[in-house]
Amino acid sequence: MSLSMSRASIPTLQIGLNALSAILDKAAAYAAAKKIDPAVLLHTRLFPNMFDLARQVQVAADNAKNGSARLAGVEPPRYEDNETTIDQLKARLAKTVAYLKTLEHKAIDSSADREITFPLGPTNKGYMKGDDYLNHFVLPNFYFHLTAAYAVLRHCGLEIGKQDFLGAIPIKVT
Amino acid sequence: MSLSMSRASIPTLQIGLNALSAILDKAAAYAAAKKIDPAVLLHTRLFPNMFDLARQVQVAADNAKNGSARLAGVEPPRYEDNETTIDQLKARLAKTVAYLKTLEHKAIDSSADREITFPLGPTNKGYMKGDDYLNHFVLPNFYFHLTAAYAVLRHCGLEIGKQDFLGAIPIKVT
Repeated sequence: MSLSMSRASIPTLQIGLNALSAILDKAAAYAAAKKIDPAVLLHTRLFPNMFDLARQVQVAADNAKNGSARLAGVEPPRYEDNETTIDQLKARLAKTVAYLKTLEHKAIDSSADREITFPLGPTNKGYMKGDDYLNHFVLPNFYFHLTAAYAVLRHCGLEIGKQDFLGAIPIKVT
Repeated sequence: MSLSMSRASIPTLQIGLNALSAILDKAAAYAAAKKIDPAVLLHTRLFPNMFDLARQVQVAADNAKNGSARLAGVEPPRYEDNETTIDQLKARLAKTVAYLKTLEHKAIDSSADREITFPLGPTNKGYMKGDDYLNHFVLPNFYFHLTAAYAVLRHCGLEIGKQDFLGAIPIKVT
């Protein structure tokens, strides 16, 4: 009755990416209804030196792609950060979800005690044990950028709530 | 080489709570330096119907307390939401970290396949398998409110970065 590394990573990241995609759908509908240029939403940031919405989405997607690839012991593909529309960002999220499906769960499951090496900024490298990397780096970073994207849109007046953020989680409610 | 439920929860939540406490220290210093009443920061929200900073801190703390208690199979204590100062919120975080230390790791480790029942709002109940509850409810909710608190302070001009958010994680950097 222990937790597998793959169960703690792949479905979690996929649900989050899909939730973000559905939030972007709501953002597109909101922009249309309010006659806001969607690009305005994509360029909104909570403070001038924070990432804008588009970049938050790209980074959340890359946290998922890079984190899970490194746990699986493979080099993650590089995706260009060239999205300028909501549809393109949704495609980036879908491509990332599809990539996660290609990763071998067995390889991820055996990564808890393996040392993971990963780039930190342009020149540094980080080293963490696999389970620490997932618990203390991949997941917090992923949720950080997911929440930041959500927060930018809430700040712009989009009416979304915790269920939009959590997405299609396996829960029974009475 | 699997991930234990206790390793994926207790240290993760403790590091996050301590990181938030250190961020509140920086908020207090910032308020003093800029001659801002700290209560203004605590009452700031990113949109009128979002939680303010004080409430984000309380909810993050409760996500950690309630989530880990339910995984351990014990009823979490209720803490009053009566904090009005940064010091009081820091005490709430410290009390929560101390509470997490009282939980039996063995009980948490055996919770992956156990059904967890938890209140959802004032009248509903949620039911999830233990590992799903941790992966898809406790951790996303915890990081959501941690990030929201961070985002409010960034929006107020506090200069903090990703390291402040991640806190004292077990990482080696070269």
